[in-house]
Amino acid sequence: MGGSVFGKNITVTTWGESHGAALGAVIDGFPAGVEISSSDIQVMLDRRKPGTSDITTPRKEADEVEILSGIFEGKTTGTPISMMIRNTSQKSSDYSEIASYYRPGHADLGFDSKYGFRDYRGGGRSSGRETIGRVCAGALCKKLLNQMGIDVFAYTTSIGDVAIDRSRFDRDQIVKSPTGMPDAKADEEAFELIKRYRQEGDSIGGTIECVIKGVPAGVGEPAFDKLDASLSKAVTSIGAVKAIEIGDGCQVSLKKGSENNDEFEMADGKVIKKTNHSGGILGGISDGSDIILRAHIKATPSISSKQNTVNKDGENIEISIGGRHDPVVVPRAVVVVESMCAITVLDLLMSNMHSKAESVIKFYK
Amino acid sequence: MGGSVFGKNITVTTWGESHGAALGAVIDGFPAGVEISSSDIQVMLDRRKPGTSDITTPRKEADEVEILSGIFEGKTTGTPISMMIRNTSQKSSDYSEIASYYRPGHADLGFDSKYGFRDYRGGGRSSGRETIGRVCAGALCKKLLNQMGIDVFAYTTSIGDVAIDRSRFDRDQIVKSPTGMPDAKADEEAFELIKRYRQEGDSIGGTIECVIKGVPAGVGEPAFDKLDASLSKAVTSIGAVKAIEIGDGCQVSLKKGSENNDEFEMADGKVIKKTNHSGGILGGISDGSDIILRAHIKATPSISSKQNTVNKDGENIEISIGGRHDPVVVPRAVVVVESMCAITVLDLLMSNMHSKAESVIKFYK
Amino acid sequence: MGGSVFGKNITVTTWGESHGAALGAVIDGFPAGVEISSSDIQVMLDRRKPGTSDITTPRKEADEVEILSGIFEGKTTGTPISMMIRNTSQKSSDYSEIASYYRPGHADLGFDSKYGFRDYRGGGRSSGRETIGRVCAGALCKKLLNQMGIDVFAYTTSIGDVAIDRSRFDRDQIVKSPTGMPDAKADEEAFELIKRYRQEGDSIGGTIECVIKGVPAGVGEPAFDKLDASLSKAVTSIGAVKAIEIGDGCQVSLKKGSENNDEFEMADGKVIKKTNHSGGILGGISDGSDIILRAHIKATPSISSKQNTVNKDGENIEISIGGRHDPVVVPRAVVVVESMCAITVLDLLMSNMHSKAESVIKFYK
Amino acid sequence: MGGSVFGKNITVTTWGESHGAALGAVIDGFPAGVEISSSDIQVMLDRRKPGTSDITTPRKEADEVEILSGIFEGKTTGTPISMMIRNTSQKSSDYSEIASYYRPGHADLGFDSKYGFRDYRGGGRSSGRETIGRVCAGALCKKLLNQMGIDVFAYTTSIGDVAIDRSRFDRDQIVKSPTGMPDAKADEEAFELIKRYRQEGDSIGGTIECVIKGVPAGVGEPAFDKLDASLSKAVTSIGAVKAIEIGDGCQVSLKKGSENNDEFEMADGKVIKKTNHSGGILGGISDGSDIILRAHIKATPSISSKQNTVNKDGENIEISIGGRHDPVVVPRAVVVVESMCAITVLDLLMSNMHSKAESVIKFYK
Repeated sequence: MGGSVFGKNITVTTWGESHGAALGAVIDGFPAGVEISSSDIQVMLDRRKPGTSDITTPRKEADEVEILSGIFEGKTTGTPISMMIRNTSQKSSDYSEIASYYRPGHADLGFDSKYGFRDYRGGGRSSGRETIGRVCAGALCKKLLNQMGIDVFAYTTSIGDVAIDRSRFDRDQIVKSPTGMPDAKADEEAFELIKRYRQEGDSIGGTIECVIKGVPAGVGEPAFDKLDASLSKAVTSIGAVKAIEIGDGCQVSLKKGSENNDEFEMADGKVIKKTNHSGGILGGISDGSDIILRAHIKATPSISSKQNTVNKDGENIEISIGGRHDPVVVPRAVVVVESMCAITVLDLLMSNMHSKAESVIKFYK
Repeated sequence: MGGSVFGKNITVTTWGESHGAALGAVIDGFPAGVEISSSDIQVMLDRRKPGTSDITTPRKEADEVEILSGIFEGKTTGTPISMMIRNTSQKSSDYSEIASYYRPGHADLGFDSKYGFRDYRGGGRSSGRETIGRVCAGALCKKLLNQMGIDVFAYTTSIGDVAIDRSRFDRDQIVKSPTGMPDAKADEEAFELIKRYRQEGDSIGGTIECVIKGVPAGVGEPAFDKLDASLSKAVTSIGAVKAIEIGDGCQVSLKKGSENNDEFEMADGKVIKKTNHSGGILGGISDGSDIILRAHIKATPSISSKQNTVNKDGENIEISIGGRHDPVVVPRAVVVVESMCAITVLDLLMSNMHSKAESVIKFYK
Repeated sequence: MGGSVFGKNITVTTWGESHGAALGAVIDGFPAGVEISSSDIQVMLDRRKPGTSDITTPRKEADEVEILSGIFEGKTTGTPISMMIRNTSQKSSDYSEIASYYRPGHADLGFDSKYGFRDYRGGGRSSGRETIGRVCAGALCKKLLNQMGIDVFAYTTSIGDVAIDRSRFDRDQIVKSPTGMPDAKADEEAFELIKRYRQEGDSIGGTIECVIKGVPAGVGEPAFDKLDASLSKAVTSIGAVKAIEIGDGCQVSLKKGSENNDEFEMADGKVIKKTNHSGGILGGISDGSDIILRAHIKATPSISSKQNTVNKDGENIEISIGGRHDPVVVPRAVVVVESMCAITVLDLLMSNMHSKAESVIKFYK
Repeated sequence: MGGSVFGKNITVTTWGESHGAALGAVIDGFPAGVEISSSDIQVMLDRRKPGTSDITTPRKEADEVEILSGIFEGKTTGTPISMMIRNTSQKSSDYSEIASYYRPGHADLGFDSKYGFRDYRGGGRSSGRETIGRVCAGALCKKLLNQMGIDVFAYTTSIGDVAIDRSRFDRDQIVKSPTGMPDAKADEEAFELIKRYRQEGDSIGGTIECVIKGVPAGVGEPAFDKLDASLSKAVTSIGAVKAIEIGDGCQVSLKKGSENNDEFEMADGKVIKKTNHSGGILGGISDGSDIILRAHIKATPSISSKQNTVNKDGENIEISIGGRHDPVVVPRAVVVVESMCAITVLDLLMSNMHSKAESVIKFYK
């Protein structure tokens, strides 16, 4: 109930603070027999690592993962997989000032109200570094999903007013672009935009889209644990996400039923949909089409421009936040969105295995 | 894991199908000593009842609640509160045809894939009637929240392209408007719009906003059980919701940090925010401002206009859906959004009681 | 967290009080496609029904179940199954006196301390009538387990100092014996014993054993959700159970490793155990042998003999509890133990379906 | 659902294998503001550390805890507390042989059946070393419980046929006795007994009692999450526990109601019980008396005496288990029982804070 445990069949517990000794995750309930090496995790962690380009924080962290349990002879054993990443570049002195006031756009006031005090160093638990553990878990889930023929991938769709042109969509570009955009031209423009905002002591928001291919119809639970509701929670639980859209999302409120409904038709002996306004989910259950969602992410609240706020003595003060910050969190959040979607889908795929009595009986015969 | 159980401290389990014998909810973990009568529940149920105006389904249901347990001498006892609403106007014959094909925009295919067959009568479990149980639970939670000085209310903000004018916002109008709009003029326009679409054999979408006043700073859990993540799941779990925004929502992706941050200031000895772009939530924890969210709801997929689809024999067919349907679900969904937000906030307020050791020790001394 | 929700994959929520309008259960997550009729439930309920012999309470209740949801065309649909039993023989006037004092051996003081007041009529929520909902759920689970080749059955092993003679074990006798004993001779003796205690205004305890045949090796989770830990909780959650033993139980503390270990051997190409001291569970995981557990149940605390206690005004008083009570709860608890074991085992069998990645991949290929 | 996550308000996740890199626990939901140092944990860990006397395994492990997160300026922050203990004395070569057969009394067959293979080194996840994480969590909980005036302590009551004499009960002796007995004389006798069994290549079982003082009436939830049911699961989840008794435990089945009921009386203006047959729990809820339970623990299954078993090739073989093993697990399990009880009671004390609406309202006013 402390809120750092996620999932039902697969249970992911993340832990760690921005400037503590280490961060990590424990994944319980992950199926046995999946070949996993540190490099499977590392390749995902490297996508959220800081300091890889001019538009991320200059904080240098190798973010090297150590697998502590749950893997034997190169395979998952079915027991908890514990993974740890040591912090190496803490500079707590940077943050001594922050302890004394509430940063606009940050959870400082909330933490103080809730817990009576807070680990103020780099945002403590509310830092984006918390997501390291999510990516560790996401890497595991993606490995298994791939073996099931399910493909989860996310990418940046816009930064500020620079949006990708879908006619130039190039999946290979995602990991090449510093911004995570699947469009080299938009990436360049966005890169310049971010640099300009940074120079102005400001920051900017953006959007991330995630596509999940290969999920069969029938996944997700009616009522509260709908596939879209579960994905919404998963993605909105990433700090800085302020809105989530499934399929056509906000556009649906303006549409007529005749425009928004996806008609079914037969194709090669299979039932398919002619369109995909639904984003692959109807009534909370997958409909066999690509699952598509979009997250809207706010600008980094830590900016060096002058801001008004109050300090712990209840005085109105003017501040300028120093330290090492990303001018935009979107590029590094792409792999986090991907990870949360992978965990969520795998978890619901596992529940779905016992939806039919026939499947349960067959398994044990 | 069947997905019909919601909440952690308060556990709401809903049950029932559109054309089954009855629908209901069991609420476990609700605190003892709250005075509750059937009319507290009924007044909320009446807000989602069908047949109250020209723009709802003509299906007539009294939706009268019977409280079966958990109340003694007019007060909650702390043990499970079971509430039941009998279905009285089932006309299953209406649906015999539906059994044979997949309705566009509905979960028919998902249910068949998941469970091997489905209760096709009126959508069975995927019907909007499932939300009756949510409203029963919401009514209980609102009663207690009111005693805590917390006010949860929702209203329609748009239907199709008719949006409310916030300068005419009148809270009393919400329950008077057939559309649930807090603006009599917009209500009238929207009402006409809906009637027109109905005549065309079509339907339309819209948006609902929910405001929660009085929640102190500190509510919500870091990481996965953030207040906004929890609310997103709660609201997105209502069928037909395809997007959710917290505070400025989708707008944040276009904004700079300096625009989006809410500055703090002192007012009457208290820390307040000058603006509320955050919608009352920072880093997943309440910041003491009004909590504001917005749900985007798709048009009713059941329309009498011609649509293409496939039947169970794998043939492409053309259909026109008869029966009794709402041309817009938004007005009746308002109280459901309100209910889900009330349950979620009360649940997290309860968790928050043991965030500080000091509180736990004090409680037991 | 109110504690009336049980299970992970299958979630059973029970509700209702001894003298309220009704009692029942909602079972969520139960697999679709199991043929169920009311009589499947009723046959189990009849085994715990009061008033069937001289050694049960004279309270007359038909305990007729009404299935309200989750069954369509005679089969489970995969959605919540709601079942209700109306109370018909409430005589709340019997209990007006009880409201004013704490009955020895009962939870009255606990309820008052916890909730501030209590539904004192017949024990309210702490009455044995709460177990009706458990039996409803147990009946469903047993039906599916039977189709999987798994057989769960319980029986009385002793009442007071009258114990069954295992050389006379006759399974058919279980439902014929008023005491639930699989031994006609012991049943007769125990019956007389109970009648004698009743005449003396007293009551008596006893033991129940449950055997689960057909569970393959591998079921149960390491660490906290061990099969034996889960069964212990399930059975100890039945009011009046004060001890639980798995396999040789309490005897193990006196035994040497060489005595207590079960050796493995090959038989017909299979690994079997020569003995079953372990009760079918090793390290929390089923070992392929019969699962065997034993519950120790205290005497009914409601007795007509004189007892000292205190009343709500803090005065020492002497009481004699009137009303309708069982002189022994054991016979009626047999089917409750059976039900709790069935729910628990089915739940863990479902989790076990995704222990291997191979199984998950195969399911979705 | 992997079963390595325990608790509702406080969530304890343990991880690690006997011969892996490390073991540990993450505790989520622990209240903020509790002063904790490594030595608070270490003093508990040292009580289960191997190699401290002639009657434990000669494996040498310092079992030094490293706190990785959740503590700032010496106090818990309310966010997950991650603790790790490095394994230093792994000798996996000892176990190469074990890989090829099923050890009697061990979970080898269960693990292979469940997961397809197992980490056979020292029992892997099913080793007693898994309990290190439980003790870490228990130490935290005990610290807070102490501040609440609640005292949890366990001790050995018997080893084989050597039982303590309660007239010689000396609490200070518990940590001094190599056996964990609160009776120096019995400790000596038991010590000799254990040495004798070890010399014979055998092992022995025993019993542990746990007492919890200071829990007010009202703690525990009706129905499934009863205090005794929760404690039963907690304690039975410790490997090797085969039976659990609450209060008079197994004796209740032989007793009459008039013997077993505890009468209430007034003492110093308070309601107390004259006797405590109930072990402090009535109807699943604490009654204000001392909570008392007893666990029965089997002999270590790893013995050097000859045993018959089968190997992976399906051949009957004779084995003698070498390696480093405890001839009795009881002494080292005492602190584990204590830890599991502390976690469970604190968890339920937290739930109990919102049992009354009055308390919830008061907290937020």
